[in-house]
Amino acid sequence: MRLLLINPNLTEAVTERCAATARTVASPGTEIVAVTGEVGAAIINSRAEDAIAAHGLLTLLAQHAPEADAVLLAVSYDTALLAARELVSIPVVGMTEAAMTTACLVGARFGLIVFGTPWVYRELVRAQGFEARFAGIRSLDAAATTALSDPMATERAVLAAATDLATVDGADCVVLCGAALAGMGQRLAAETPVPLVDGISCGVPLCEMLVRLALPAPRLGSLVSPRNRRTAGLHPALAAALATPEPKR
Amino acid sequence: MRLLLINPNLTEAVTERCAATARTVASPGTEIVAVTGEVGAAIINSRAEDAIAAHGLLTLLAQHAPEADAVLLAVSYDTALLAARELVSIPVVGMTEAAMTTACLVGARFGLIVFGTPWVYRELVRAQGFEARFAGIRSLDAAATTALSDPMATERAVLAAATDLATVDGADCVVLCGAALAGMGQRLAAETPVPLVDGISCGVPLCEMLVRLALPAPRLGSLVSPRNRRTAGLHPALAAALATPEPKR
Amino acid sequence: MRLLLINPNLTEAVTERCAATARTVASPGTEIVAVTGEVGAAIINSRAEDAIAAHGLLTLLAQHAPEADAVLLAVSYDTALLAARELVSIPVVGMTEAAMTTACLVGARFGLIVFGTPWVYRELVRAQGFEARFAGIRSLDAAATTALSDPMATERAVLAAATDLATVDGADCVVLCGAALAGMGQRLAAETPVPLVDGISCGVPLCEMLVRLALPAPRLGSLVSPRNRRTAGLHPALAAALATPEPKR
Amino acid sequence: MRLLLINPNLTEAVTERCAATARTVASPGTEIVAVTGEVGAAIINSRAEDAIAAHGLLTLLAQHAPEADAVLLAVSYDTALLAARELVSIPVVGMTEAAMTTACLVGARFGLIVFGTPWVYRELVRAQGFEARFAGIRSLDAAATTALSDPMATERAVLAAATDLATVDGADCVVLCGAALAGMGQRLAAETPVPLVDGISCGVPLCEMLVRLALPAPRLGSLVSPRNRRTAGLHPALAAALATPEPKR
Amino acid sequence: MRLLLINPNLTEAVTERCAATARTVASPGTEIVAVTGEVGAAIINSRAEDAIAAHGLLTLLAQHAPEADAVLLAVSYDTALLAARELVSIPVVGMTEAAMTTACLVGARFGLIVFGTPWVYRELVRAQGFEARFAGIRSLDAAATTALSDPMATERAVLAAATDLATVDGADCVVLCGAALAGMGQRLAAETPVPLVDGISCGVPLCEMLVRLALPAPRLGSLVSPRNRRTAGLHPALAAALATPEPKR
Amino acid sequence: MRLLLINPNLTEAVTERCAATARTVASPGTEIVAVTGEVGAAIINSRAEDAIAAHGLLTLLAQHAPEADAVLLAVSYDTALLAARELVSIPVVGMTEAAMTTACLVGARFGLIVFGTPWVYRELVRAQGFEARFAGIRSLDAAATTALSDPMATERAVLAAATDLATVDGADCVVLCGAALAGMGQRLAAETPVPLVDGISCGVPLCEMLVRLALPAPRLGSLVSPRNRRTAGLHPALAAALATPEPKR
Repeated sequence: MRLLLINPNLTEAVTERCAATARTVASPGTEIVAVTGEVGAAIINSRAEDAIAAHGLLTLLAQHAPEADAVLLAVSYDTALLAARELVSIPVVGMTEAAMTTACLVGARFGLIVFGTPWVYRELVRAQGFEARFAGIRSLDAAATTALSDPMATERAVLAAATDLATVDGADCVVLCGAALAGMGQRLAAETPVPLVDGISCGVPLCEMLVRLALPAPRLGSLVSPRNRRTAGLHPALAAALATPEPKR
Repeated sequence: MRLLLINPNLTEAVTERCAATARTVASPGTEIVAVTGEVGAAIINSRAEDAIAAHGLLTLLAQHAPEADAVLLAVSYDTALLAARELVSIPVVGMTEAAMTTACLVGARFGLIVFGTPWVYRELVRAQGFEARFAGIRSLDAAATTALSDPMATERAVLAAATDLATVDGADCVVLCGAALAGMGQRLAAETPVPLVDGISCGVPLCEMLVRLALPAPRLGSLVSPRNRRTAGLHPALAAALATPEPKR
Repeated sequence: MRLLLINPNLTEAVTERCAATARTVASPGTEIVAVTGEVGAAIINSRAEDAIAAHGLLTLLAQHAPEADAVLLAVSYDTALLAARELVSIPVVGMTEAAMTTACLVGARFGLIVFGTPWVYRELVRAQGFEARFAGIRSLDAAATTALSDPMATERAVLAAATDLATVDGADCVVLCGAALAGMGQRLAAETPVPLVDGISCGVPLCEMLVRLALPAPRLGSLVSPRNRRTAGLHPALAAALATPEPKR
Repeated sequence: MRLLLINPNLTEAVTERCAATARTVASPGTEIVAVTGEVGAAIINSRAEDAIAAHGLLTLLAQHAPEADAVLLAVSYDTALLAARELVSIPVVGMTEAAMTTACLVGARFGLIVFGTPWVYRELVRAQGFEARFAGIRSLDAAATTALSDPMATERAVLAAATDLATVDGADCVVLCGAALAGMGQRLAAETPVPLVDGISCGVPLCEMLVRLALPAPRLGSLVSPRNRRTAGLHPALAAALATPEPKR
Repeated sequence: MRLLLINPNLTEAVTERCAATARTVASPGTEIVAVTGEVGAAIINSRAEDAIAAHGLLTLLAQHAPEADAVLLAVSYDTALLAARELVSIPVVGMTEAAMTTACLVGARFGLIVFGTPWVYRELVRAQGFEARFAGIRSLDAAATTALSDPMATERAVLAAATDLATVDGADCVVLCGAALAGMGQRLAAETPVPLVDGISCGVPLCEMLVRLALPAPRLGSLVSPRNRRTAGLHPALAAALATPEPKR
Repeated sequence: MRLLLINPNLTEAVTERCAATARTVASPGTEIVAVTGEVGAAIINSRAEDAIAAHGLLTLLAQHAPEADAVLLAVSYDTALLAARELVSIPVVGMTEAAMTTACLVGARFGLIVFGTPWVYRELVRAQGFEARFAGIRSLDAAATTALSDPMATERAVLAAATDLATVDGADCVVLCGAALAGMGQRLAAETPVPLVDGISCGVPLCEMLVRLALPAPRLGSLVSPRNRRTAGLHPALAAALATPEPKR
């Protein structure tokens, strides 16, 4: 199977890091195809940049989904997740969704560790309905780039934050948000007081599972693909996806 | 004051209808400036089209906000509302937000009348935190275009739905969603069992009020404007807005 | 239009301060008519005093509403808000409701600054359904009277509390509760890290907006005026309001 | 012990019915003292009448609590419940609170049967925090007075509503709201599909239990009695209760 | 009446302490019959031990309920509460449920004081639907056995925790969880800043009240007793209770 | 890897059906080991039977987990899920949890189709925190055994219920609860209006995924294994699991 990994921001290094982590956890038969955004922010770090990225993400999706079996959104805000699920009939999973979902299978309640301010992540927890399973959040003071330049300092900060989440907030599992932390859980497994999960390591097997289930596309409900839509100014692939006629039945 | 009304879909007729309604309710000193989307869907009717419209909306916002005092989003999904509020320091109000806000000032609980399926509107109610004040929703069978082609049939359907929402769900006020229903509340005032409000009629005076309050832009919290952001492929105005350097203090 | 401002406690100085603030924000054509309670507590500072004030408030409402176009409750507990809305067919807005409503139009989440213990205000947030938008609360140690006797100390305390709410709780906007803080937001606009709003400054334009909308009184739902009610011992105006016969239709 | 039963509306017949039911369930040593409101509505049937009744209720409470060991509010809206608890240091229980509390001890979820519209009762369920245990509500078409004039028809309607609540909404227990239904549960015990409880039958033993527990009055928290309060125009007993000086410690 | 007190763990000393406390609060005519678990954990202190105890508890219930009028679960996790209510037609009350229920009749919001980690108690608060009335929780550092070996140190810790809950979290009443704290509230009544309640002191009179109400067993809803069930390996009394045939009607 | 499938009820045929379904979806290297309960109910169909099954389930778990890599609970009430997770350090997944988790990865909101009354399933949805993603529930009139004896009638009923859930409640995906429906989703894939998922088909790949992630056991939080626990009357394997000494560190 081919798993399409879409990073809607413009930084190839982030895409490559996500793709590398994805390849370490993918099953033998899974091919990782990673694409990077061409329009929008170098790094998505605000609601505005995230909103802009939605267009770019759906454009990449419309271009590349026809040759893929499933899609993993390699962006920690899970940009345009339900919109992407509407647009294509293959499985689409968000990386933070994947990690929070896995955390719920492992613990009673989970915590989040993020770079920067926590507020948009709190909205994500609420939007995806994880509130009853959410224990708390900790922000790393350093910028995400520090995770690459000084990984040991970041690891110490992550261990301290995870210990605090487990002790004070009762978190049984901790989600590491952001591509810069992908794969860190495995490295820290011997030292961490609670399991650390990240969106790429969890998202790849979840996508593989959904492909194996081979569920049919919905013909009712809120996720039926839009059809026969008139648009202007869009990439031809995206315009074509929206203009698809109703299937004959 | 100049009130910028942004319709992110591509249908001028919808913009004009919203602008016309806006002008009937605006204060004497308020000038309505209405702009229409240039990229995206002719009519936004799915999460995918809404996600695409966010980019277009922020582009129009970056272009036109410098000459405006406040912004009203003339799209019933309140596309990219918080992102828009992040990007600019003038007030930004969503039309459905405006109507639901007003409904809460009028009644204990409100209902919604929408064209098409109700599911995305339910997500909007939840995302904006109106759940405790939400009584119920009714979908009009007809397409939104019917409201223009057969207004009397639409008015009868609206009255029936409003009566049902008040009787069965206890709605004290009913929000008419969608530009096609703007202004209908005033026409039906003598017949309706509960007040009918729409997003344009409510949004214009709310924007005027926020302009009068002249609140300062936030320097802390979740809505601080992104600064010094690197981007590619964006309209120069949008790129410039995101690239604004930190203010000296 | 005539805007009736009802302060159900017995302290004229509070009424005057609210009326003065109201006049600074009112539109040119708006006349502020302020009345003060005659029965009950000098200052309302407990659920018991608030419960007593409800009777006095509705009595004043029944007396003065016939000459008014809208009502603003000048009491930070929003005493008897829905009961007042039931009793009269003109718009009724509570001052804390007004400020919280405005805060939601400005930010993603808001905080509260109050004098004294925060518990009744938390119940108000819940009763009005603002929980999903509520970030946190801070109590000023000083009594409300300090705001008048030592305004600079109060301003420093307010700025510190607002900064804490924004930094720790992610508040994007802060509501100043209580008549003693009315108007302080405008004075501190240059220094505050997030916008400060108060119930009088927000309530006046919201009332003006509702008057402009000219919504009909409900004939169904939970807010239909009680009719033909038998009572004893009430002020004649209040008794008459409750004894109003059913309208002929 | 002396149990004070306060009916804040003006209808002696309702008080008598409640007192009679109370006497049938009271323990041997419990004396029922019932008082009726003197100011306000003949029958409380709206938020406005309820808000007015709060003053009368607290007045009766201040007059009669000194000779009582506990108080049961004999009014189905639980008028001014927390305010009453603040004012006096003896136990105060609301009749609907008592019935819903008992229903939670009996079943997983409970339903309500009410006269008239259900909306204020829904607000009561929410205000008291019973939402997670609330299954549903049914309104009897007839007025409360029918329960007295045609009891058999009312009993049939109650059985039908209780059956519907159990079958459709999964209610395990049903609360009969309103004084007119007090005692009906016992009469229908052989026929009802789920237990029927009412506020008087449940409230009397709950008050007796609280008296036996002899809990101290709070010196911290949200229910500390207001002290040293200045008031005007109140009944001397109520004014005195609020003017009580701080206890020496 | 005979009140069956079931302690599903294996420690007689705990049963005896609960029974002794129960006898001090029971009405003259109430006989306390206490039974101790025979299979499972010496002390229940985890979800696993609690899950195991459910079987033992239902076995004791099936054996002893036929001679009892009501059942009080003398275990702070309220083990198998709804299952027990399903199995028998007499009232069944959990001790923590009893204390939280009483706390709601006394205050607006309550706190919990527990031995050990608070997480399972938080799940109990949620499972029983007390979230809106829950103020906060404090864990005593010492083991439960300290309460017996060094009661004065425990009392000081309880007073400190209760003061903190009242001051910081606004708790109006505090629930003491665990048999080791039963009866401590009465001893500390003169010193505590808010009432302290425990599950045995509250559970006994609540059971007595339910017996007095003599409510019928449900024939609909979620708590209808299972009938005609085939089982294997169970104690004969438990097997017989599940195998009871449907009643003829 | 070895995946332990525990059916805590006593009916081998159910175990076999679950194991057969599991084998059709398992990866090549996955061995399915299925065990059936020896003590308790033939079929679990009430909270009482479920509570009894918890003991049996943990006994089977303690016996068989040492030779397994992960555990799937083959019982639609997810009996003792968190207790099982506490007891062992390998992954444990409940079958209904697995299906609801998968449904959230596929749709915005999901519905449930169950045999018999829906009330315990609603409690499961709440206990696991899926409320915000829960659309509705439908009960099949027939007993679960009908699914085996008249599969075509059951399939028609399932299709009708799924269509209703999608149309009326907006479900995007439907969970088939109960072993009797395992595998039906695949058979109906061509006809169903929304994807149908079941707990075995989803649980097997989720367990495989968790094994691949190789997360460490928690040393903090709510799921740390109980240690050094004294017990009596338990199966030696279960007693030994609870008596495990603290690990040296």
